[in-house]
Amino acid sequence: MIYITRRERFTAAHRLFRPELSNAKNTEIFGGCANPNWHGHNYEIFVTVKGNVNPELGYVMNLRDLSKIIEENVSDKVDHKNLNLDVDFLKGIMTSTENVAIAIWNQLEKPIQEHGAILHCIKLVETENNFVEYYGGK
Amino acid sequence: MIYITRRERFTAAHRLFRPELSNAKNTEIFGGCANPNWHGHNYEIFVTVKGNVNPELGYVMNLRDLSKIIEENVSDKVDHKNLNLDVDFLKGIMTSTENVAIAIWNQLEKPIQEHGAILHCIKLVETENNFVEYYGGK
Amino acid sequence: MIYITRRERFTAAHRLFRPELSNAKNTEIFGGCANPNWHGHNYEIFVTVKGNVNPELGYVMNLRDLSKIIEENVSDKVDHKNLNLDVDFLKGIMTSTENVAIAIWNQLEKPIQEHGAILHCIKLVETENNFVEYYGGK
Amino acid sequence: MIYITRRERFTAAHRLFRPELSNAKNTEIFGGCANPNWHGHNYEIFVTVKGNVNPELGYVMNLRDLSKIIEENVSDKVDHKNLNLDVDFLKGIMTSTENVAIAIWNQLEKPIQEHGAILHCIKLVETENNFVEYYGGK
Amino acid sequence: MIYITRRERFTAAHRLFRPELSNAKNTEIFGGCANPNWHGHNYEIFVTVKGNVNPELGYVMNLRDLSKIIEENVSDKVDHKNLNLDVDFLKGIMTSTENVAIAIWNQLEKPIQEHGAILHCIKLVETENNFVEYYGGK
Amino acid sequence: MIYITRRERFTAAHRLFRPELSNAKNTEIFGGCANPNWHGHNYEIFVTVKGNVNPELGYVMNLRDLSKIIEENVSDKVDHKNLNLDVDFLKGIMTSTENVAIAIWNQLEKPIQEHGAILHCIKLVETENNFVEYYGGK
Repeated sequence: MIYITRRERFTAAHRLFRPELSNAKNTEIFGGCANPNWHGHNYEIFVTVKGNVNPELGYVMNLRDLSKIIEENVSDKVDHKNLNLDVDFLKGIMTSTENVAIAIWNQLEKPIQEHGAILHCIKLVETENNFVEYYGGK
Repeated sequence: MIYITRRERFTAAHRLFRPELSNAKNTEIFGGCANPNWHGHNYEIFVTVKGNVNPELGYVMNLRDLSKIIEENVSDKVDHKNLNLDVDFLKGIMTSTENVAIAIWNQLEKPIQEHGAILHCIKLVETENNFVEYYGGK
Repeated sequence: MIYITRRERFTAAHRLFRPELSNAKNTEIFGGCANPNWHGHNYEIFVTVKGNVNPELGYVMNLRDLSKIIEENVSDKVDHKNLNLDVDFLKGIMTSTENVAIAIWNQLEKPIQEHGAILHCIKLVETENNFVEYYGGK
Repeated sequence: MIYITRRERFTAAHRLFRPELSNAKNTEIFGGCANPNWHGHNYEIFVTVKGNVNPELGYVMNLRDLSKIIEENVSDKVDHKNLNLDVDFLKGIMTSTENVAIAIWNQLEKPIQEHGAILHCIKLVETENNFVEYYGGK
Repeated sequence: MIYITRRERFTAAHRLFRPELSNAKNTEIFGGCANPNWHGHNYEIFVTVKGNVNPELGYVMNLRDLSKIIEENVSDKVDHKNLNLDVDFLKGIMTSTENVAIAIWNQLEKPIQEHGAILHCIKLVETENNFVEYYGGK
Repeated sequence: MIYITRRERFTAAHRLFRPELSNAKNTEIFGGCANPNWHGHNYEIFVTVKGNVNPELGYVMNLRDLSKIIEENVSDKVDHKNLNLDVDFLKGIMTSTENVAIAIWNQLEKPIQEHGAILHCIKLVETENNFVEYYGGK
């Protein structure tokens, strides 16, 4: 068993807020992250998959395939987008780093499995000082 | 003459577009950067000032002062903000990296001079692959 | 269960030595790190906490709270300090990266628990080539 | 139990291919990595060892010793080398990041044990977007 | 006048040597860089162009255009290649960082000019410790 | 004319203060940097030299030579040292980043010239947020 990681990047706007609360109340809870006019980030995703090394190919999974899976299921949907408004797989979800990481996991788990590897970890970096790691729901 | 640089960071949403054009036309010109729902970045600003070393203090300018000048005149106004909607010193300006760098220069030139140093360069980093440097308008 | 990490930084002087040994003997064991006149580092601390996502807030723990806990219990006590002389929670401890990481764990475990999350890992980076990870004492 | 990591670097040429296949077939499978004239990387190795803190020394293992073990058993053999042609411990091995990481593990496991620590992880970084982690063969 | 920089990356094999000298002599002069079996790097190119801001577009030059110019004239020709054997614009050139930077300048100067900007600097990073900057030949 | 840069690193303790002032006064002026028990940094030095490319060698100056010059004249004297107490070429100098950069320039200018290149810039990085650049005294 060995672990291989691919990094991808996207830039997006977002906002933390609960729609049933006032702007003032949201600011009290979420600080500047509640700005009704949005703010944004350069996000980095580190997708780690695990598996055995295919002896004929030398790798767990072709990184070009992994990169393409991430592109089709995540990057194309979130890059240069508003995470709260534009992304089908984030509809109705508060766009905290935690929740976005979990939603990315749900996007990638199956297609990675279909290529013979197992999704191990989604690491989502929001700023140089903050990141989240998710290893699946169990 | 010696040069000293202070890095500060902010996160913001923005959009590239010309208001007199349709969304389709803006997308044709600016690509994903024209998304009407905004996108965003973790920006880094590198502010370089120059001057002679004060022999009693050992430095061109107290970095705590420089940091405070940047905070009051730039960071507090742009961090967790929408560059197109929320920022007084960017009103009516297309928020390209170039234009934001020039506007930051204009914010900082005078207060730095009042502290006895000379603003030399604003470097504004938008992503790990793109940045702008501005040395003043002459 | 999800993991969220906050990075903080501090700069400090320190020295590796055993007080019962001569300077020559300490240099033999600890090399340049035994310099009686001290040396120093820009340290980075990565504090990882784990927990379930609070459905109303979208996060395991408010990062502003986590940052404040680290500041009050660690950063304010070690930043611009001598780890051997100035720090209450390092008294009598040899200031190796390992021991400092364990001492930081002991400072943070309880206050993080009081905010409803579980401390998972202290990663202490001493130089770009050396770091320690501690997951608790059991 | 605590974990300490040492980073070392080397630059090398390599190529992914199966000798029994044609160049065209290898290119189909491995893309640009199959270039018969080679390509290359600045590799980073992160070697993580675990153990208890020696109370007299303050560390799990002297990092100068760890660095020397990596140098003698890995760096001196791969730095400024061709991984396919020049390296005794890679003879007959397809030089994918996975396989090189496993081979480095095999080089380091015993000498680290002889210094009283346990090898925990080899992380091999091939580019800023790709890396492998190996925790041993069981 | 403002300066904008685009970073691109490529991985390549190369070797420093003078064909009229023996391997032993080349090793004496160039050290490990003379290895007849090649070694390699992850290179980074920073291409800086200067010009005035186009008031309708907000930028000196469309970064998508700049990126495409670099891709067609440099990256596609050097990525996953052997700099000594595979690259038309490096034929007969000793592939030191200096010479490769100058050759990249010569590839990019004209096409950038044709897009209305002026090439200002090629910065070529060979390792995290070594880089070259070239501002043109005069 | 082309510019080549070598990065070296050192770790050191230091303190900002004027010996004729009280500790309280020094703290007022220099903040935490005046701590009488010292603090410290992982410093990075970027030494840039300029010259013409030697057509037989492909470079301005052999980087092994440049690295050795820096080692002998700077790194060996400051690494794991106290900048205020241990360093001959900093005696009587307030150890601000500015002054240390100038002193490093003075150490390196002549030996680099003796190897046929011209020292162009000393960049001294004190933290990820602060650095100084010095281009010589005129």
